[in-house]
Amino acid sequence: MSYFANVDKINYEGPKSKNPLAFKFYNPEEVIGGKSMEEILRFGVAYWHTFTEDLSDPFGVGTAVRPWDKFTGMDLAKARVEAAFEFFEKLNVPYFCFHDVDIAPEGSTLRESNKNQDIIVAMIKDYMKDSKTKLLWNTVNNFSNPRFVHGAASSNNADVFAYAAAKVKKGLEVGKELGAENYVFWGGREGYETLLNTDMKLELDNLGRFFHMAVDYAKEIGFDAQFLIEPKPKEPTTHQYDFDVASGYAFLQNYGLQDDFKFNIEANHATLAGHTFEHELRYARIHNMLGSVDANQGHPLLGWDTDEFPTDLYTTTLAMYEILKNGGLGRGGLNFDAKVRRGSFEPEDLFYAHIAGMDSFAVGLKVAQKLIGDKVLDGVIEDRYKSYSDGIGLDIVNGNTDFNKLEQYALELKEIRNESGKLERIKSTVNQYLLTVYADK
Amino acid sequence: MSYFANVDKINYEGPKSKNPLAFKFYNPEEVIGGKSMEEILRFGVAYWHTFTEDLSDPFGVGTAVRPWDKFTGMDLAKARVEAAFEFFEKLNVPYFCFHDVDIAPEGSTLRESNKNQDIIVAMIKDYMKDSKTKLLWNTVNNFSNPRFVHGAASSNNADVFAYAAAKVKKGLEVGKELGAENYVFWGGREGYETLLNTDMKLELDNLGRFFHMAVDYAKEIGFDAQFLIEPKPKEPTTHQYDFDVASGYAFLQNYGLQDDFKFNIEANHATLAGHTFEHELRYARIHNMLGSVDANQGHPLLGWDTDEFPTDLYTTTLAMYEILKNGGLGRGGLNFDAKVRRGSFEPEDLFYAHIAGMDSFAVGLKVAQKLIGDKVLDGVIEDRYKSYSDGIGLDIVNGNTDFNKLEQYALELKEIRNESGKLERIKSTVNQYLLTVYADK
Amino acid sequence: MSYFANVDKINYEGPKSKNPLAFKFYNPEEVIGGKSMEEILRFGVAYWHTFTEDLSDPFGVGTAVRPWDKFTGMDLAKARVEAAFEFFEKLNVPYFCFHDVDIAPEGSTLRESNKNQDIIVAMIKDYMKDSKTKLLWNTVNNFSNPRFVHGAASSNNADVFAYAAAKVKKGLEVGKELGAENYVFWGGREGYETLLNTDMKLELDNLGRFFHMAVDYAKEIGFDAQFLIEPKPKEPTTHQYDFDVASGYAFLQNYGLQDDFKFNIEANHATLAGHTFEHELRYARIHNMLGSVDANQGHPLLGWDTDEFPTDLYTTTLAMYEILKNGGLGRGGLNFDAKVRRGSFEPEDLFYAHIAGMDSFAVGLKVAQKLIGDKVLDGVIEDRYKSYSDGIGLDIVNGNTDFNKLEQYALELKEIRNESGKLERIKSTVNQYLLTVYADK
Amino acid sequence: MSYFANVDKINYEGPKSKNPLAFKFYNPEEVIGGKSMEEILRFGVAYWHTFTEDLSDPFGVGTAVRPWDKFTGMDLAKARVEAAFEFFEKLNVPYFCFHDVDIAPEGSTLRESNKNQDIIVAMIKDYMKDSKTKLLWNTVNNFSNPRFVHGAASSNNADVFAYAAAKVKKGLEVGKELGAENYVFWGGREGYETLLNTDMKLELDNLGRFFHMAVDYAKEIGFDAQFLIEPKPKEPTTHQYDFDVASGYAFLQNYGLQDDFKFNIEANHATLAGHTFEHELRYARIHNMLGSVDANQGHPLLGWDTDEFPTDLYTTTLAMYEILKNGGLGRGGLNFDAKVRRGSFEPEDLFYAHIAGMDSFAVGLKVAQKLIGDKVLDGVIEDRYKSYSDGIGLDIVNGNTDFNKLEQYALELKEIRNESGKLERIKSTVNQYLLTVYADK
Repeated sequence: MSYFANVDKINYEGPKSKNPLAFKFYNPEEVIGGKSMEEILRFGVAYWHTFTEDLSDPFGVGTAVRPWDKFTGMDLAKARVEAAFEFFEKLNVPYFCFHDVDIAPEGSTLRESNKNQDIIVAMIKDYMKDSKTKLLWNTVNNFSNPRFVHGAASSNNADVFAYAAAKVKKGLEVGKELGAENYVFWGGREGYETLLNTDMKLELDNLGRFFHMAVDYAKEIGFDAQFLIEPKPKEPTTHQYDFDVASGYAFLQNYGLQDDFKFNIEANHATLAGHTFEHELRYARIHNMLGSVDANQGHPLLGWDTDEFPTDLYTTTLAMYEILKNGGLGRGGLNFDAKVRRGSFEPEDLFYAHIAGMDSFAVGLKVAQKLIGDKVLDGVIEDRYKSYSDGIGLDIVNGNTDFNKLEQYALELKEIRNESGKLERIKSTVNQYLLTVYADK
Repeated sequence: MSYFANVDKINYEGPKSKNPLAFKFYNPEEVIGGKSMEEILRFGVAYWHTFTEDLSDPFGVGTAVRPWDKFTGMDLAKARVEAAFEFFEKLNVPYFCFHDVDIAPEGSTLRESNKNQDIIVAMIKDYMKDSKTKLLWNTVNNFSNPRFVHGAASSNNADVFAYAAAKVKKGLEVGKELGAENYVFWGGREGYETLLNTDMKLELDNLGRFFHMAVDYAKEIGFDAQFLIEPKPKEPTTHQYDFDVASGYAFLQNYGLQDDFKFNIEANHATLAGHTFEHELRYARIHNMLGSVDANQGHPLLGWDTDEFPTDLYTTTLAMYEILKNGGLGRGGLNFDAKVRRGSFEPEDLFYAHIAGMDSFAVGLKVAQKLIGDKVLDGVIEDRYKSYSDGIGLDIVNGNTDFNKLEQYALELKEIRNESGKLERIKSTVNQYLLTVYADK
Repeated sequence: MSYFANVDKINYEGPKSKNPLAFKFYNPEEVIGGKSMEEILRFGVAYWHTFTEDLSDPFGVGTAVRPWDKFTGMDLAKARVEAAFEFFEKLNVPYFCFHDVDIAPEGSTLRESNKNQDIIVAMIKDYMKDSKTKLLWNTVNNFSNPRFVHGAASSNNADVFAYAAAKVKKGLEVGKELGAENYVFWGGREGYETLLNTDMKLELDNLGRFFHMAVDYAKEIGFDAQFLIEPKPKEPTTHQYDFDVASGYAFLQNYGLQDDFKFNIEANHATLAGHTFEHELRYARIHNMLGSVDANQGHPLLGWDTDEFPTDLYTTTLAMYEILKNGGLGRGGLNFDAKVRRGSFEPEDLFYAHIAGMDSFAVGLKVAQKLIGDKVLDGVIEDRYKSYSDGIGLDIVNGNTDFNKLEQYALELKEIRNESGKLERIKSTVNQYLLTVYADK
Repeated sequence: MSYFANVDKINYEGPKSKNPLAFKFYNPEEVIGGKSMEEILRFGVAYWHTFTEDLSDPFGVGTAVRPWDKFTGMDLAKARVEAAFEFFEKLNVPYFCFHDVDIAPEGSTLRESNKNQDIIVAMIKDYMKDSKTKLLWNTVNNFSNPRFVHGAASSNNADVFAYAAAKVKKGLEVGKELGAENYVFWGGREGYETLLNTDMKLELDNLGRFFHMAVDYAKEIGFDAQFLIEPKPKEPTTHQYDFDVASGYAFLQNYGLQDDFKFNIEANHATLAGHTFEHELRYARIHNMLGSVDANQGHPLLGWDTDEFPTDLYTTTLAMYEILKNGGLGRGGLNFDAKVRRGSFEPEDLFYAHIAGMDSFAVGLKVAQKLIGDKVLDGVIEDRYKSYSDGIGLDIVNGNTDFNKLEQYALELKEIRNESGKLERIKSTVNQYLLTVYADK
């Protein structure tokens, strides 16, 4: 049976197409700098937002109209798998991602939950044989169930720590079974509501212990996925320990985990932490910690995680710029951790939204590649920092100086000449690149 | 003498021009819907940011390199006028705007300040004879001098109220003298630091009285400019009375001033108040209160007034959309209440920045016009609200119903069918319009 | 049967009591300025947060342990009524508040919903006979059901407008039946997700029409409750029309409704709009629009509606200050629109939380009354604004001057002397009042 | 001569004193847990805010009335020293702090600046002989001069790096000369305006090199002060590298500097970064990185650094709680990096404001000590985390388990029982402690 009978396979039709169910900018086969768009962008569909999400919000019950919602229990889980692979094929995406509870219902015991999962994992594995779509990453949901009310690995309750560990253990096994290229940790409840009742030191130590055990177990079973931490500053907690990439990096260094983890960076989490998306990508990149990306966007005037589909072309351009400068995402990809708006409740909206996101990143890729090809920003930087390529500047970067020598040098300086940073001119140029990237078509 | 000898007149060279001192998108003579770009956009240069501003910030003294800064006192004021008209001509802008203290230094008495102003106003009037550039609006600065520490018209000190009135009186006379098309009130200190020492009722009443006296005096001298209130939520005060358009409108209605005022809406002030720029424009437009625009942008992650030059093409597009739906700005215009970044301190940056802003609004105009021409959003709205064009919906808008009838109707309803709002699809379409508006060139 | 068998009636035990289930500061019978605390504070319990709320959040299912959750359907609704009146009595509160859907489950048709409601309303009426607890206000929930996805009175769908009207009609009848002293309108979905698909003018006009019809119907049935609008800036919508008190007041004036409505002001909504709670209260008070209060608090670092129980004594003090200066709340009260944290899931936490809130407002009342009694802030204000009590200041407030006369006055001014606003000293004094209010006990 | 002739020495007069120029709560000799308040709190006056600051803001020139402002140049610098030591003595504070440019004017060359500084440093040293007030820390201002427009140690201009190094070299020498107990680095311009023209990797590497050279030079001259980094997220830059304590800690670890630095934590910087003050203190404390404190507060609704004097008793209580749990601040102290409001421009306001701050921290100290003495929060935590003291919990913290064992344990778990976090009850208790701490007086 078909769950999206109204929708045919989404094809590339070019920038002027009037067909809402076509790509205008994402052409998977188009080659950019030696690789196809599909290979560079490595798009993934988020199972939870696309097949499980009901579009409820804190003030309203779900609005989503989903043809599989006539089923319940394991039948619903199976219908979702069928719908998912139909969706992947029609959208022509190379990857998907899931949490354990997205694909299979929790049972009344851990054993039963695992059993349910095994059934669906087997079904997914079967579907994957006939599909090009692979598993970018999986993870487990250690935040929705009431047992995680006070955290999972950072819970004050050791039983919960153990239960969370058992779930991650299973997650690692499932990842191995389905060939996941990465494994993600989002610590949705790993933080606190208030410091008044929190032992932050013990909680962080326990988190460190938990991650070490996860690393050990993955080695034990030969699961060689890249481990990823996904930072988020707050929500649902008042303060989440992996606040942003920098604080996650402080944690990893402190617990000797920096070689075993990279970061999965989400645009909306970046802005909630007071950073631009490109800042988080840049920070991770220059520390060699950029693993994968949750491609979405927030609303700059709203203080919660809106998880919108990415359509802001400035953001996609600057994100792709960092990704290209990183030499690509390696085993990572662009996972659409994004949900259609509550008012976009029809099944077709799932296609419109993914098309919007994929087209936006395709545009970002093309503009970024052109900026790099023309050395637009590299040229600016080369010129601005040229004082470090000889003389006192070279001594500084080579470590051949000290405060005594620098003072001698400074005392002899006649005048210090700075040059304009020309921000407005650079921004104009970026706009010009954006507006003309399709001008030759 | 020339203050910008390195810069020639800025011409339109088209989207592919590599010349940083040329317009790529703003073509003043290009006709859009029957009017030239110049006539529609009515760009203005802000005297304070361009000729007076030194680019200091709370943590640093000014960095601006300005050739006229070798002068002081009235000589400096005169040099600025010369520089200004050279700048206007080279940039080819039709308008400018100023505060009293931007153009002439304050004297040690009010009389002396007025005298200084008279000299410079005469000089400006003289320059205007040979220039196409007109005065979009003027205003007086009733916020920088320490006397306004507790407010101007809302000061707790009646002497300050009187002094502020005298300054506005002079401002109205200057506006008349120079043919200003509007007169602006920005109440930078009309608000409070804390409620603990504030009589809000008296302060608001006094503000109302002040505005009535201003209206009366303008009539008395035959100055027929449009009066404009410029809302801003906070900064420098903790709370400013004209918080946003809606609160300004509440105030105007309450004091019977709504027919004498419209709003001068600033993009950065909108976002500081928690609104999008287009929200403030729309709210003003549908209440017939949209007067003029301070064209700039804020930084979504910074909590103060950054007054950046506008380069975000989404914002310029949606702003121009509202302006076109308003039938244009009437006597208002797009004043660049924007300053170059502290790091962009060279005189040329003033040109780069204005080019960035003018090009960005020209693009916005073209995309908005095309969206309107193709009925893209109008079509969406017509379709979404069609239920109000007959039946019960028509009864509602015509006032032919009541709760009794509506209940009867609702009790008989079988099923309520809503349709998707299709936000993601609409955003995709806007992106497509943006990316292809220059694709035919 | 008892739902809170572990809890006895909560009594006042004084500031040093170690009993967590006692009031330390709220002494209902204590007389403050001629009235008892109970009469002044008029506390109300919010049915939804206390008896219906399950403590779910966007990332987790409910954690609340509620003894009545063993029931379902109408049995659950009835059990909640029993629990509610037991709770009211043990907590000794004079008021409660509810939405239609809090007290009775929605049926499959409007008729069935109304029937369910009738049964529970009759039961509540019966309970009220033997209880001192009265209905502060009721309202209807026109935001949770998917039919309200695009708004209620501002929906693009006329059927939804009609349905919403029918629900409010019923709400007015229920309010009359139970003797509600106020009727509240919170427009949770009356706003927009995006301007791109929104006809703001039609939506506001329809809102205006809706309110007029509500006023007419209340008159028709002789329901003389005070109508209240509850502003909130955003969430669940991106922009809500009743953004804050000022924008609500602009709306009411524009549609000629200002004499029929006052405001129900919520602390957390104030801060989400960028205002302090006391600002919203003050603004409403001086415009004679302060109706009632939703007593809670937000988290200053979180961007969503946390609806915490109020414990910040600065806020309760400044709120009570405004309320006392208003001559009390009239028919309004202090409704605890507040929920226990997700981690505070035990039934006893409902008592702890209400005690925290009631004690905090009792302290606020005592400190505010002492500040007023000692003329602490009134003295500051009298002194600061004394220049308006004679001379030019008196001319200004009496309307006996104009810009010509003010200029003459200003020209003759020798020096303008402002005085320090002494904010730090005033804040010190407020702290001193807070710290010593119980020092004599 | 006297600069504060109207003010006598500020004495402790107790909670009921009506004297605005007296301490009500700060009693330097009162012993708390074995030490005097003076020894625990180690208050410092910030030279810049108290003797240099003119109370200008981005929209207005300075309002401060300062008796020493009749002088200029070096005479002004000397007058400020006289005023400062009179102020220190009258306020009875044990410490002060300064930047190089606060105490002496910059000359036209680095040599001249150093010479000016030498003169004033000698004068200060002389005054210190007769004063109890010591130097808590000094620093250099590498952010205000236009040469630092693009940063100091992170400038793109190697000459600026050298100049900044020479200034810090001098600062270390001055610190040694005056016996500073700490040396602070606040990187006001060490960040970026935009990533578009920024080489973040080179800038961070250079910062790392700079700090290593500073450490080396301090050792060379035998200056054994504690080095402190003061984090701030943004302002004046768009993004500052030392965003918060966690990102500073990531940086220090990455460059091998974690043993040479601790943090100087400012309340207002914490909130601008999205954290509570107590969060930053706690994070630093448990990582053994808490060095010193800039005692001020921000305004929760304003997005810039307001540097208010601390008066919020919740914040001072929770801050003192962390400080007491840290075993005190060691060589650090509570420096009032706070300025009087622009409206509080009289010299006396400097006293009122410091009294407000000192009293508020004294209250915080007493409440915190009582909470600790009564084991209020320690008791909560001991109870909440008890599951880690034996069984599986003890295995976890001792590292005696792994995912296999934890899964075995979890599979056998019957039911997981969490307990309420009781936040509302705890907050009530904190209020009770606050309100009764002076109840026995």
